[in-house]
Amino acid sequence: MLFDLHVHTEGMGLLELKKLRESGVTGICSLSFYPIKPLFPQTLIDEFRRLEEFEKLRCSMVEIEMFPAVGIHPRCIPPDYETVLEHLEANDWVAFGEIGLETGSEIEQDVLRKQLKIAITKDIPCVIHTPGGNKRKITEKTLEILKELEFPNELAVIDHTSFENLDLISKSGFWVGLTVQRGKLNSGEAVKIVREIGEDRCIVNSDAGFGHTMLDTVAETARILGKEAKKVCYENPRKFLGV
Amino acid sequence: MLFDLHVHTEGMGLLELKKLRESGVTGICSLSFYPIKPLFPQTLIDEFRRLEEFEKLRCSMVEIEMFPAVGIHPRCIPPDYETVLEHLEANDWVAFGEIGLETGSEIEQDVLRKQLKIAITKDIPCVIHTPGGNKRKITEKTLEILKELEFPNELAVIDHTSFENLDLISKSGFWVGLTVQRGKLNSGEAVKIVREIGEDRCIVNSDAGFGHTMLDTVAETARILGKEAKKVCYENPRKFLGV
Repeated sequence: MLFDLHVHTEGMGLLELKKLRESGVTGICSLSFYPIKPLFPQTLIDEFRRLEEFEKLRCSMVEIEMFPAVGIHPRCIPPDYETVLEHLEANDWVAFGEIGLETGSEIEQDVLRKQLKIAITKDIPCVIHTPGGNKRKITEKTLEILKELEFPNELAVIDHTSFENLDLISKSGFWVGLTVQRGKLNSGEAVKIVREIGEDRCIVNSDAGFGHTMLDTVAETARILGKEAKKVCYENPRKFLGV
Repeated sequence: MLFDLHVHTEGMGLLELKKLRESGVTGICSLSFYPIKPLFPQTLIDEFRRLEEFEKLRCSMVEIEMFPAVGIHPRCIPPDYETVLEHLEANDWVAFGEIGLETGSEIEQDVLRKQLKIAITKDIPCVIHTPGGNKRKITEKTLEILKELEFPNELAVIDHTSFENLDLISKSGFWVGLTVQRGKLNSGEAVKIVREIGEDRCIVNSDAGFGHTMLDTVAETARILGKEAKKVCYENPRKFLGV
């Protein structure tokens, strides 16, 4: 039994979901992402409904328990994003994600801050993206915002950790997200990090979906990890989500 | 070289698109469909952009030439659908689809009629759905609307033909869409129909995507068809689309 905390089922076909299940993954968190910059805030509100209704059902068809995460990804900020924030504030959610900073622009910071404030009030766990480019500087900015808001440690995973920002994230006290995917960590590197900083705060995930076609990376990492896999690839993500 | 006129790439992962390409399909038409009933017309406008930008690009990554079709599917009619119709009227499109009737309700008829009128004015080919349930009666209603509008024969394919509505569609003069997929025709049945009514007006397609996981059904049907495949699985759909 494995749990993949960072998947985008909207970018996956049913055959791919089946493959994910066959690798041993029985639970996932499917994160909101719109593959182009939407022109309308309404598009995201319907996309959240799609995750909660259609995607959850589709996952259950292949016997995967899916928990939807909603929110505004920094690459998908629509005009009039306050409409989306009001919708997030007015309803109940399992988790927020994928949220965070991509370039670190003022507007991205505003969207992140406002989502984090809602998360604090409503006690919602947040999956927080760090970008490929300018990774160290943007991670520092992200952690600075979290500190400024006194964001609870147990409510955030800082994801896509690499050797470039590992020291920052591991000493921050937040959950350490280790994404094993082409262009990110490989399974050996993820294992090395778990061994180095300990299994207690680490969560391995795949970021599968859309362009990312490696589906069994949580399973692969679990195999190498051995007995630590139970925590890092199953218990920790469920504890983080509170499920 | 095969062409699949009825695919929903938004319900497919990249690995599935690769499989489709490996079966011999080099060109497709990806049809608009939203897997839940949208609450906002804006959601469909962004979805059309997603098809034209992201989905087209994703297909090109696996060397499939994709032509997007847009429009309001009868199961996806949002409130204030006039906003979508105005958007369809104001812009240029390769094709309309998937449009048609599902239950045949007044609102579905209104949405179909208005889209067909735009298609006539702008000379846009239309991929027209016929439903699983009440198929014969709804096909009759669909053909009645097309007749009432004097819709040009060459601009519509009536899709998901079965033995229940074959006689109606084959004598209508429109293109005959033969969908080979689980729950629809099998390849042997599609071949039988082509042999019966002739290859000139038939177009074989898969309706792959979302729940439909059989990806290579155009290729399979082409193999059985032999020399008629060139027309039915390549030339006819391209002629219909004008590409």
